[in-house]
Amino acid sequence: MRIETVAANHGVDVHWRPFLLGPIFQSFGWETSPFLLQKHKGNYVWSDMQRQCIKYNLDWQKPSDFPRAAVLATRVALTYRDAPWIGHYCRSIMRRNFVLDQDIGDTAIVKQVLTQLNLDPPQIEATALSDEHKPALRAQTQLAAELGIFGAPTFFVGEEMFWGNDRLDDAIQYAARSSK
Amino acid sequence: MRIETVAANHGVDVHWRPFLLGPIFQSFGWETSPFLLQKHKGNYVWSDMQRQCIKYNLDWQKPSDFPRAAVLATRVALTYRDAPWIGHYCRSIMRRNFVLDQDIGDTAIVKQVLTQLNLDPPQIEATALSDEHKPALRAQTQLAAELGIFGAPTFFVGEEMFWGNDRLDDAIQYAARSSK
Repeated sequence: MRIETVAANHGVDVHWRPFLLGPIFQSFGWETSPFLLQKHKGNYVWSDMQRQCIKYNLDWQKPSDFPRAAVLATRVALTYRDAPWIGHYCRSIMRRNFVLDQDIGDTAIVKQVLTQLNLDPPQIEATALSDEHKPALRAQTQLAAELGIFGAPTFFVGEEMFWGNDRLDDAIQYAARSSK
Repeated sequence: MRIETVAANHGVDVHWRPFLLGPIFQSFGWETSPFLLQKHKGNYVWSDMQRQCIKYNLDWQKPSDFPRAAVLATRVALTYRDAPWIGHYCRSIMRRNFVLDQDIGDTAIVKQVLTQLNLDPPQIEATALSDEHKPALRAQTQLAAELGIFGAPTFFVGEEMFWGNDRLDDAIQYAARSSK
């Protein structure tokens, strides 16, 4: 929700590189989110998330279903990762899940988001699912695994890795310093 | 390293409640630190810790042995949790481990720290290992588990839990607001 604003304030460019976290968790032997596998930590993370959203003045409600698979939503994001609307799209998808408690795995929800962005949902869905673009998500997820990514969001500034909202500001400052 | 300074700046009192993390990890089915069990995350955490120490202007080097058991050091901390020197003692023990790469499980190291604080190491060791005080560490660790603690440092402000250095400032601000 914050990255494009914070980056712009520091003159830093953002390149979105969407991937699936589920296969990475599976490679660790986890069938689902560690929030569910580690009960105590999971309980804490939910209350922490609520507090953080209050701190950042973001709407939030706990999704009634978690984690939600969002393969089409992520395929669209990856296919259009460099489109001018990518940030707005990602925030809209996250809002559907974490504010409106909607199933972002549902094609209809993804299409609603695209419609609200004044885009052409059938054309975008067809492109994201085309033979040309569909395999990219598997490759991008494999690349994420090879980079040592174990959670999301993760930010790279060159080869320097920063994990999570808690490190966003450090990452942006590192990028701003590196480009000087 | 930071808590007493940050707390004092906000007029917040700190009550130290040392416990052992190892038995809590074992209760999750983990034989050792998750930093070792999750290779990717572990690698990241070490480089992140180094960056954070630079940010906070703290000396740091990666211990050659991790995690180090520190049962006597923790028994001393718990027995003397409300002593005026507890903060200084905890920081000194942490420095021995994370700056000087010394084995804080070694009684001699604990005694060196106490000596540097102008205390009486044999008397303190005897008190911490006495029938009166020794069982307290097991009970305190059990209490930590019952409170839902899954890592360290963890801060409580009343019943509100905050985990990790990343949430220290939130915890202190919450405490400062709560006491108004």
